Amino acid sequence: MPQHRMALCKDHFLEWVPEQTARFIKKYWMFGPEERILVAVSGGKDSLSLWDILHRLGYHADGLYLCLGIDGGINYSTRSQQLTEKFACERGLTLHVVNVQEQTGRTIPQWNEINLRGREKPCSLCGLVKRHEMNRVARDLGYDVLATGHNLDDEASVLFGNTLNWSSDFLLRQGPVLAETPGLARKVKPLCRFYEREMTAYALLRGIEYIYEECPYAAGASSIYYKELLNQLENHRPGAKLAFYLKFLEARKSGFFAEREGVEDVELHPCLHCGQPTSAPELCSFCRMIKVGQVE
Amino acid sequence: MPQHRMALCKDHFLEWVPEQTARFIKKYWMFGPEERILVAVSGGKDSLSLWDILHRLGYHADGLYLCLGIDGGINYSTRSQQLTEKFACERGLTLHVVNVQEQTGRTIPQWNEINLRGREKPCSLCGLVKRHEMNRVARDLGYDVLATGHNLDDEASVLFGNTLNWSSDFLLRQGPVLAETPGLARKVKPLCRFYEREMTAYALLRGIEYIYEECPYAAGASSIYYKELLNQLENHRPGAKLAFYLKFLEARKSGFFAEREGVEDVELHPCLHCGQPTSAPELCSFCRMIKVGQVE
Repeated sequence: MPQHRMALCKDHFLEWVPEQTARFIKKYWMFGPEERILVAVSGGKDSLSLWDILHRLGYHADGLYLCLGIDGGINYSTRSQQLTEKFACERGLTLHVVNVQEQTGRTIPQWNEINLRGREKPCSLCGLVKRHEMNRVARDLGYDVLATGHNLDDEASVLFGNTLNWSSDFLLRQGPVLAETPGLARKVKPLCRFYEREMTAYALLRGIEYIYEECPYAAGASSIYYKELLNQLENHRPGAKLAFYLKFLEARKSGFFAEREGVEDVELHPCLHCGQPTSAPELCSFCRMIKVGQVE
Repeated sequence: MPQHRMALCKDHFLEWVPEQTARFIKKYWMFGPEERILVAVSGGKDSLSLWDILHRLGYHADGLYLCLGIDGGINYSTRSQQLTEKFACERGLTLHVVNVQEQTGRTIPQWNEINLRGREKPCSLCGLVKRHEMNRVARDLGYDVLATGHNLDDEASVLFGNTLNWSSDFLLRQGPVLAETPGLARKVKPLCRFYEREMTAYALLRGIEYIYEECPYAAGASSIYYKELLNQLENHRPGAKLAFYLKFLEARKSGFFAEREGVEDVELHPCLHCGQPTSAPELCSFCRMIKVGQVE
């Protein structure tokens, strides 16, 4: 791991990852030992590893799998669900499964087909559905916090995109913890400081069976392009990706970004249908999509 | 010019560049029609084109050439000086020439040799000398403003480097205009919104003879690496480089970056030797280098 100027054997690496995760959980005040955690699991290496780590650390962490109904010629959703269920079953962990088609009447590909935004930016529509459903389940089942498996490459890529556009709203909000607000569960990213390759190594060394393929719809997404650019930068200067993310967090913590009035104070109120907070006058984006089939 | 969704013939392009420059000069309040401008010219396409443009626009713009004493196997300084003098002579423009070796006792390569910082980061030491000498001449000769030929690629590259490090001090200061302060001339970059390739086209179409080679010491500089990355981004999404720079300027103008107390208020006082402002207790970095041969 040139970015840390460190090399570890298998055993020490498999100790180091949970130790570091525990450190990040404390450092960023993600959650305490008594809180109930809902881990959003996709069947990929990051989220299954996160669940594995939290379990090893002794946290009360249940899983949530959202069946998106994506086939993509590789049976994507079915296989990822099977791997997730196998993982949970072998460890005796509690897994909640939500089927998007049952909840919303359509699979993600079906929503994408009838929807302008879905056709142009399938990940955007899918993200909307996932955020809504994850939050709904976390609140309905009384979890204290929702944990996702975003790794450093994910976070740096999003930060990079937001920085290229100087998207102030997003820059002010991105980070390891998104605090709880009325109607929205706290969200945390305990793996946000691990390189993607570290998480791959962890999953492989722990013998976790996960789905190797990326979602077939993600091909061509900006986030993937940004990851490639950042990998070039990292190859040129090991540690650059981590420094980019951490120095951003430091700059924001030290007050570098002005919390302007009016920016953070968008008036939110409960969606008339689902009750989740929205800035729209009546229905939230998710419920508008369900009702009229379109997302702006 | 895909970034502007525009294509121009030679004649219109050669009109468009000065028109745009005049627009930027007004938009960013760089200087008025009566002010005396000192253009820092290196013999490269950008600075000679800038001088040409300001001349065409009717401004009172004289040139300043700093002879750095760089050979690099290609007779770099001698050839660039000759091209600059030829340019000035053919147009009847006033050119001031300062020889760094005569002023400081050593050429830039000689300073680099005896200096730790110079050996590691030759551009950093050279920048220090150039900034000091440009400012000295501008003030001694009573110019209102110092203009440099930085183009968009230069600016975006510096911004990119500062953003990767979230260098708040630099991010707060970078821009088309650096206001005059006691002891420091106003600095402006009238070409900051032109792509490098636009400036190359301008120089070629105007028949300006310039030195094609980059400074031999610049090889391997981070700025060049960042330019390559940004070019990839630009190829992937035309206009991305310009948007990155302009959205940054907008974000800063709209108050996104907090002007924290203590950050901008570093106490400056005149260097005991040259009188230029410095935060160091007695001599400025330049004069310390001259006196003890070292720069921290």
